[in-house]
Amino acid sequence: MSGWVIVAGLGPGAEGMVTPDVTAALDEATDIVGYTPYVARIAPRPGLTLHPTDNREELQRARHALDMAASGRRVVIVSSGDPGVFAMASALFEALEAWDGPPPDIRILPGITAMLAAAAAAGAPLGHDFCAINLSDNLKPFALIEKRLRLAAEADLAMAFYNPRSNARPDGFARVLSILLECCGPDRPIIFARAVSTPDQRIVTTTLGQAEPKMADMRTVVIVGNSATRTVGRWVYTPRGMA
Amino acid sequence: MSGWVIVAGLGPGAEGMVTPDVTAALDEATDIVGYTPYVARIAPRPGLTLHPTDNREELQRARHALDMAASGRRVVIVSSGDPGVFAMASALFEALEAWDGPPPDIRILPGITAMLAAAAAAGAPLGHDFCAINLSDNLKPFALIEKRLRLAAEADLAMAFYNPRSNARPDGFARVLSILLECCGPDRPIIFARAVSTPDQRIVTTTLGQAEPKMADMRTVVIVGNSATRTVGRWVYTPRGMA
Repeated sequence: MSGWVIVAGLGPGAEGMVTPDVTAALDEATDIVGYTPYVARIAPRPGLTLHPTDNREELQRARHALDMAASGRRVVIVSSGDPGVFAMASALFEALEAWDGPPPDIRILPGITAMLAAAAAAGAPLGHDFCAINLSDNLKPFALIEKRLRLAAEADLAMAFYNPRSNARPDGFARVLSILLECCGPDRPIIFARAVSTPDQRIVTTTLGQAEPKMADMRTVVIVGNSATRTVGRWVYTPRGMA
Repeated sequence: MSGWVIVAGLGPGAEGMVTPDVTAALDEATDIVGYTPYVARIAPRPGLTLHPTDNREELQRARHALDMAASGRRVVIVSSGDPGVFAMASALFEALEAWDGPPPDIRILPGITAMLAAAAAAGAPLGHDFCAINLSDNLKPFALIEKRLRLAAEADLAMAFYNPRSNARPDGFARVLSILLECCGPDRPIIFARAVSTPDQRIVTTTLGQAEPKMADMRTVVIVGNSATRTVGRWVYTPRGMA
């Protein structure tokens, strides 16, 4: 029996946003590896071993998955959202670079990433050119985040922000909002989309002038429009064209 | 009976990437509206009317959907990929702005957008901060595309490009490649992902120095890595962190 590793995106939370390809991979797996709250979404069944681990252990988790696949196991690494967007796919390839011996079969199965579920819940704020920036400064210096914010604003891209705020770095997001206010002005629409597609979903639409850091937590995706983004009724959208 | 409009993302092509929420919406619809090749993906059934239309008719299509919903029909506007990424959701809200009378119920259902399916097929090239840029200049001047390319390169974002090339504008993509080569150098990885998840899928990984305009057509998504993007075996990935 030949083992494999699949990195699968579970989407933002709702079962109705898990693709059939991902469901099929979960059904074939012998082992599920991932951050504890994501593994908790997988129903136990005979023959399936769940391996929940802590958040900061991405590389170790990836090595464990490669080890098990090399010994013939069928391993799914679960990510929330899409595994290629600030999630486990890159960690797996980092682990693969340091891997000795023949690599096991690997597949990446895409999922609905949080910013697109958030955009859909709010309207179409990412309907024109946009960027996605991870605000966690665990893996990069804040100076690089600031540089990217200023250049993205100059390029008039809509922006989606992952991991805006944590207890470990309470001040970073306040600085982000202050830079955005300076670059984009007080009337620019901003959306705080928390726990999208779950029973806890909360969508707050406001402006940079009214935005406060406490509107975001680690379950929130933040979207800032471009200069043409506007509201119609309860919806926020960015037109397809620019003059 | 109260009508509604749902804008649903069909994903990049494979049925295994259509979410259960989208399938459920299609099952409840009385009318399907969209660009002809996307409507062709919907199986006919009694009670369902298909309304295929041409590519350039987004606003007219959106008004038609609103009209039908106002008269009690259950209308799904189908997009490929995700409806909020260079697709029909923004067009619907543009039409809604000009709409007289009470708006019908509207929902946007996200889908797997082409760049994320392409990234998954190639590895994890969008594993760090990135941007998505529509290279069609139907709706914006080329000067704005060029400005965004240069700023995105300066920000060291990975980049995903939609609609890179068409017969109507054969030269634009050559200019894009030339700007990227100037800004990012000849060794930067570039991925041409054509018809991802369909039987016609073809993934070509090369460098900006080797890239040629003819490697892309209108069914291709193009991904350019950031300065840290590299290969491991047949995979291309961007590490999660930056020094």
